Amino acid sequence: MKKLRSIILFVAILLMMGTCLVSCATKVDDPLPSWNDGASKKSIVEFVKKVTTKGGPDFVPPAERVATFDNDGTLWSEQPMYFQLFFVMDRVKAMAPEHPEWKQKQPFKAALEGDIKAVMAGGEHALLELAMATHAGNTTEEFSQIVKDWLATAKHPKTGRPYTEMVFQPMLEVLAYLRANGFKTYITSGGGIEFMRPWAEKVYGIGPEQVIGSSIKTKFELRDGTPVLVRLPELNFLDDKAGKPVAINQHIGRRPIAAFGNSDGDLQMLQWTAAGEGLRFCLYVHHTDAKREWAYDRKSQIGKLDKGLDEAHEKGWTVVDMKNDWKVIYPFQMR
Amino acid sequence: MKKLRSIILFVAILLMMGTCLVSCATKVDDPLPSWNDGASKKSIVEFVKKVTTKGGPDFVPPAERVATFDNDGTLWSEQPMYFQLFFVMDRVKAMAPEHPEWKQKQPFKAALEGDIKAVMAGGEHALLELAMATHAGNTTEEFSQIVKDWLATAKHPKTGRPYTEMVFQPMLEVLAYLRANGFKTYITSGGGIEFMRPWAEKVYGIGPEQVIGSSIKTKFELRDGTPVLVRLPELNFLDDKAGKPVAINQHIGRRPIAAFGNSDGDLQMLQWTAAGEGLRFCLYVHHTDAKREWAYDRKSQIGKLDKGLDEAHEKGWTVVDMKNDWKVIYPFQMR
Repeated sequence: MKKLRSIILFVAILLMMGTCLVSCATKVDDPLPSWNDGASKKSIVEFVKKVTTKGGPDFVPPAERVATFDNDGTLWSEQPMYFQLFFVMDRVKAMAPEHPEWKQKQPFKAALEGDIKAVMAGGEHALLELAMATHAGNTTEEFSQIVKDWLATAKHPKTGRPYTEMVFQPMLEVLAYLRANGFKTYITSGGGIEFMRPWAEKVYGIGPEQVIGSSIKTKFELRDGTPVLVRLPELNFLDDKAGKPVAINQHIGRRPIAAFGNSDGDLQMLQWTAAGEGLRFCLYVHHTDAKREWAYDRKSQIGKLDKGLDEAHEKGWTVVDMKNDWKVIYPFQMR
Repeated sequence: MKKLRSIILFVAILLMMGTCLVSCATKVDDPLPSWNDGASKKSIVEFVKKVTTKGGPDFVPPAERVATFDNDGTLWSEQPMYFQLFFVMDRVKAMAPEHPEWKQKQPFKAALEGDIKAVMAGGEHALLELAMATHAGNTTEEFSQIVKDWLATAKHPKTGRPYTEMVFQPMLEVLAYLRANGFKTYITSGGGIEFMRPWAEKVYGIGPEQVIGSSIKTKFELRDGTPVLVRLPELNFLDDKAGKPVAINQHIGRRPIAAFGNSDGDLQMLQWTAAGEGLRFCLYVHHTDAKREWAYDRKSQIGKLDKGLDEAHEKGWTVVDMKNDWKVIYPFQMR
């Protein structure tokens, strides 16, 4: 009996050690634990290994390791509409007492009634009008605080979660993995630059100097001797489609060696990235998971991926199949 | 005799060791060897020590250590005119065969004749016209190459030196000192962003993503399937005076804790910097050295420092007396 006990104990210890070794090794070796093994994950890891291998044919010096990421639909969800539009609609409601005329006036009426479809039906012009009314007229510091205050209480209508919890765990891992390998990670979003900066550092580890987005004009003013930047109701730059490479050049002045998007709005950024000399990496997140997130592509009003999907297949870019490539979608699903 | 020799040898060795110790200690301890001891040097060193002292009342986390530098007159010379204007005039000459009409047309005629005064007399409008004609119509990559080619051969009319050798050694030391203390150093110049980027990394150690300047608009195009950014003859942003804080906010999204300039064109940047919470550092380079560089301030057409000088004295900002504060001006004077 004593011998048997000893043998069992010995085997148990061996098993425990084995388990520990395996799990420790997994944790250490796998920079992308929320990604299922497969072509997508492999393509990311192989690219990073190649550009960081000193003396290798594809080595890229750290200063040139620039990776750009779209935000809506690439780093966080974007359905049933861009999250910034929820902010816009909540701002319209909050500001409505000062604007009694909005009750009768579109697109404000639709926003006040929470009628997403009617707001969207107004097209780009209506969205721009809403954006100007809700994003301008304050200072940069005031606006930053308004965004922070909103995020602290706002909840997504479907998940009931704060918007900043609806970020993609697998993409957070890609961001961290790239930075651990000497990359600078940038956001290049059609969303507002000053809407993202107040939280991008905490949520994505991306500081404001690496956030690029659409913007309105600002004006320097001395108010009682104190300098402020006042936000004006005038579009400065629309960081979408052909605007993305323009903004990347303006802000970074280097061509990315890796770019990540999810819609046709990112296509020019991916083309610009792919056309550089040396090894390049382009990735599309394809929303294929109707159960855990949303499934949409060629015919979606938000985040349409049509031409881009064809070009990705044609050029051999990585197309992430969200449903099959990702073990989890959101960080809160890991708890 | 033998004993005496031994003593002499011993003393000699001691002296050598002493010399070495002193010189090594000087090199290690003094991050700003080209600065004479005095209030200016002291103010820089004390500021850096305070914001980097962990647990101290003025500590600033590394991510917030942003320092912005004007270029013309702050990091390199700017007389008898901004160096970029020499580039413009040389470009007009190089492009003249394709533009026979320029011989009769101002401001091109003045530029072709090398008449700096006549070019300057045309004011901002004339300069803008020359800039558009010489800076647009090519791709970003073509323009970058044109700048590099020009710098490789162009010489300053007074010193006969390449323009990139006419940078201020004491300021190079400030840049390196700040970076060694966890700062991010940015250029914020009225000069062209794409004119500075091709050489700022090599000369100042400042990569393109940390160069901010004036710009013209660019447009994304597919040329035979290859994406290019075409430079358009349309002003995008003038990064001067009240434009500097606007551009700093747009590019960096953090308020600098230290700012360096030399003219009234930098005043708003210094005001914006000084008005932030916590310890701030503002510095004006005052051109007081007619012998080794140039002496000019309140009445100069280029780099006028008038209101800024008053405000600097009033607010206790550091005003560098070039003649007395700097041991050398240019790196080539050290050889």
